[in-house]
Amino acid sequence: MQGELERALGQVTGEPVRIVLAGRTDAGVHATGQVISFRSGTKVDPLVIRRGVNALLPQDIAVRDLEEAADTFHARFSATGRAYEYRIRAGAHREPLERHREHWVPQPLDEGAMERAARDLIGRHDFAAFATGPLEGRSERDVRVAGWRREGTLLRFGIEANGFLRGMVRAIVGTLLWVGTGHTAADRIGAILASRDRAQAGPNAPAAGLCLVEVKYEGDAGETSDEDEQR
Amino acid sequence: MQGELERALGQVTGEPVRIVLAGRTDAGVHATGQVISFRSGTKVDPLVIRRGVNALLPQDIAVRDLEEAADTFHARFSATGRAYEYRIRAGAHREPLERHREHWVPQPLDEGAMERAARDLIGRHDFAAFATGPLEGRSERDVRVAGWRREGTLLRFGIEANGFLRGMVRAIVGTLLWVGTGHTAADRIGAILASRDRAQAGPNAPAAGLCLVEVKYEGDAGETSDEDEQR
Repeated sequence: MQGELERALGQVTGEPVRIVLAGRTDAGVHATGQVISFRSGTKVDPLVIRRGVNALLPQDIAVRDLEEAADTFHARFSATGRAYEYRIRAGAHREPLERHREHWVPQPLDEGAMERAARDLIGRHDFAAFATGPLEGRSERDVRVAGWRREGTLLRFGIEANGFLRGMVRAIVGTLLWVGTGHTAADRIGAILASRDRAQAGPNAPAAGLCLVEVKYEGDAGETSDEDEQR
Repeated sequence: MQGELERALGQVTGEPVRIVLAGRTDAGVHATGQVISFRSGTKVDPLVIRRGVNALLPQDIAVRDLEEAADTFHARFSATGRAYEYRIRAGAHREPLERHREHWVPQPLDEGAMERAARDLIGRHDFAAFATGPLEGRSERDVRVAGWRREGTLLRFGIEANGFLRGMVRAIVGTLLWVGTGHTAADRIGAILASRDRAQAGPNAPAAGLCLVEVKYEGDAGETSDEDEQR
């Protein structure tokens, strides 16, 4: 994704471009709200750049908006929050047309227990138990929102924090699915957080269900953060 | 699709199965409301057959429901109507996550003209001008519903008829896009129908935007039809 964008931007602006992504997304993870920044000496109009870049990009990437930012703006370090959504199809059958962006769980799920467990994630906690791979830097994060919403047979898990550790949302969803299927008690979240042990949390839920839906900046959230986005 | 379903059904029921589809769908066309029928001497419970078949089917096909029908039921000949939807993304950029099921049109569209033209399709007409390939049998069809609905930047064209000729919906949408972009006047539909000449209508809109959303049977529609479904 980064490579394709840099190539397309370089071609349209006529100079080499290095972009900064607000949130990293693993292979198979979607993003409808990704934000990038880059420096350029180009005189080409932003609208013209956007059109040219979209014409060059592969079908699975598109630039929605492009505008000039303040000199101090940095897509990653200026961000004060990120919001992800994880989609679970809870029903007797798959939804073939949605298969690329949701995870199908045929087992019955205790949604009340999943919601109670989700609530225990809210607040400032050390999320080391939910991180994939070695920790880089501090592992505390401020989770502001975490909860489930049902639409028909679709269960949408929304989570917002100042930043996320690598694999954090997928490990959280995997753990909440353990709770939903009765494998783990709903009140275990606190103990799992306290353990800082990845083995205590559930397996990473599949990438397809995950989507970066929004990146927040000063003015949206009113709080600055220098936390590294590692998810 | 037919082959995969017949293989899976044959494996689960333990006997060769030939299925009948209510509506044919070309490669790349989706279906959320396809109906099939087959004869079987199996004693296996329909719920068990459905689960077994869904476990064997590839990820892009799923059986939602399976039930025993009257001996006279035939998915294709018992159908009294079919409803298709065509999705157009009318906006400045593509929607990458929806790219498999919609057609992106970046040009401005005159939606009022497209709606007026759509209305002229309603009624019993000879749709030979909108058929792909040689006609098999009669080319009159009763279009009961044809119209556009906007949701944000998504334009949804819904059309319902007793049956459709091969390629008919895609040719209609291609023609309505000609109207929307000013290539063809909104009041030309009657003349195109009267011409019975495929060259008068617009090009087939891409398959990806099309979806068979419902098949209607006696009781739903109150009208029997022996029309062949050729789309």
